[in-house]
Amino acid sequence: MPIRTGKGTISLPEGVYINSSAGVAGNKEKEGPFGAEFDIAFDNNKLGMETWEKAESEFQKYALSAMLEKAALEPSDIDVIFAGDLLNQSMSSVYGLRETGIPLMGQFGACSTMAQTLAAAAVFVSSGAAERAAAVTSSHFCTAERQFRMPIEYGGQRTPTAQWTVTGAGAALVSRKPCPVRINALTIGRINDMQIKDAANMGAAMAPAAADTLLRFFGDTDTAPQSYDLILTGDLGKVGSELLRELMFRHGADISKVHNDCGLMIYDIEAQDVHSGGSGCGCSASVFCSGIMRRLTKGKLKSILFVATGALMSPTASQQGETIPAIAHLLHITNSP
Amino acid sequence: MPIRTGKGTISLPEGVYINSSAGVAGNKEKEGPFGAEFDIAFDNNKLGMETWEKAESEFQKYALSAMLEKAALEPSDIDVIFAGDLLNQSMSSVYGLRETGIPLMGQFGACSTMAQTLAAAAVFVSSGAAERAAAVTSSHFCTAERQFRMPIEYGGQRTPTAQWTVTGAGAALVSRKPCPVRINALTIGRINDMQIKDAANMGAAMAPAAADTLLRFFGDTDTAPQSYDLILTGDLGKVGSELLRELMFRHGADISKVHNDCGLMIYDIEAQDVHSGGSGCGCSASVFCSGIMRRLTKGKLKSILFVATGALMSPTASQQGETIPAIAHLLHITNSP
Repeated sequence: MPIRTGKGTISLPEGVYINSSAGVAGNKEKEGPFGAEFDIAFDNNKLGMETWEKAESEFQKYALSAMLEKAALEPSDIDVIFAGDLLNQSMSSVYGLRETGIPLMGQFGACSTMAQTLAAAAVFVSSGAAERAAAVTSSHFCTAERQFRMPIEYGGQRTPTAQWTVTGAGAALVSRKPCPVRINALTIGRINDMQIKDAANMGAAMAPAAADTLLRFFGDTDTAPQSYDLILTGDLGKVGSELLRELMFRHGADISKVHNDCGLMIYDIEAQDVHSGGSGCGCSASVFCSGIMRRLTKGKLKSILFVATGALMSPTASQQGETIPAIAHLLHITNSP
Repeated sequence: MPIRTGKGTISLPEGVYINSSAGVAGNKEKEGPFGAEFDIAFDNNKLGMETWEKAESEFQKYALSAMLEKAALEPSDIDVIFAGDLLNQSMSSVYGLRETGIPLMGQFGACSTMAQTLAAAAVFVSSGAAERAAAVTSSHFCTAERQFRMPIEYGGQRTPTAQWTVTGAGAALVSRKPCPVRINALTIGRINDMQIKDAANMGAAMAPAAADTLLRFFGDTDTAPQSYDLILTGDLGKVGSELLRELMFRHGADISKVHNDCGLMIYDIEAQDVHSGGSGCGCSASVFCSGIMRRLTKGKLKSILFVATGALMSPTASQQGETIPAIAHLLHITNSP
């Protein structure tokens, strides 16, 4: 049964585990420094589908199937699935998961979705409301760019602060069955809006949300950055990561020695010309559910904070002159032999 | 601590309560048969804002504020808020709730959102992960119509099966503090897709999802329609309600004596020319959180099933020839003196 510690952190003393996971990615991600880590990496991002949106749904299906196969489970073994994505009406999740027959609670947290779905799954499992819960999300360069920014064919110039939406997906299985990877605690994020309006500078919009959640977690648990092997943010990229480190430093928490960002790990940002780094729900999902989970399973990582950040803007809101609200959800995950 | 009973139903034996709620609506709803029931009903649906989307955010703010005022609570007393709406990237919720400072888990269930947010809140509260959780949603005729169907100014003809998106919002407070209205159990819905493609016939798309969830609940709990005072669906309207009753009858469950639908209660469907009835997240939210909660509090309703249904289609998916997947989440709510 979860216990609330401090202002917003929920600890899970009875043991909630991530039993299986799979990270799936596209061709640009396959060519990057994390390429060998993914469970599946495709050479073509359309996967034989008619549209990019249908291809993104396929990425979710591949992630879910690979995760279930590793756990030797069928869809009917899952009590509830928490899933969402960047597309209007969570289109990739709804159409990607509709044939599974698994009860679904759609989640919207933009690029924070992998952490949000894991958090929801952890609480449902911890409480006994579900025996096994799945957390799934995805993003796709071609669906996100045309929805949030420019038609792909237009070939718009990208600013130096722009990030590259990852084509990929992740799926994870949460249950109370003991295994090496345990979710110890979680902190639900709250909206931070620093009045940034530039959809090509999401790192700057999201960094304050990550700082807010991290500072709440450190305060609630009376711990400090050096208590952890790794503080892994979702997709702040280069600009947002520098901002986060500075913001944390100003608040007396130096994370520079233990911080990394999935958006910086997934691409060689110079050689692959992705400007500030990777972004999208699929960024932290594909990195966390593949290589990071592997390191946690093997004990190469012992105690990490996974902090996925989301820029919650809507193109309609941007057209109406609105700013970019951001959020960050955190999970404390350990290797528990 | 919740207990899983049967295939998908979660019972909450230790007591989870809805301590406060508020339903807010617009002018057409004020003129309807439920008009006197709302906590607040406005004569103008723009509420002094520049855009309809910003007005919809205001409806959420009014619902949350009214609910908190009735409970004599401040936003800082709420541990987590579950909220979502029909707009792309849950725009009404994100922008409406960003200044509350309350940790947020965005939910996407289309018109099933009021039941989904209540279900999430109930599990979080039951488990101890939250002491007090809020469930909030909204819809607005002018934002939904232009996003899902036609520009308002176009004045498109409406088909006989079309429903009228409710302008309104609802907010509810869930905690373990005993009060007359208790959430006894809940069933998370799964996607049903009957291959319907007509966005002007959502009732037909959603009825099978409601039937699926009701049949699972009756099976899991070994109960029948006559065990309940009221089986209240969200927004099936006239067409969907008739279909649901027939589908249930074919499966041996005659709900005709106890069934009603928020989409039929909120308008005089003949006099107000709304064709098949009301729809939208705000339909079941404003009806449930006002008059239905009042009847439960006073004991005029003793035991109800609240089954909000959602049509999960995306306009992008419809443009790509896709069908309308639907879902329905159920709560068993009782007067518990």
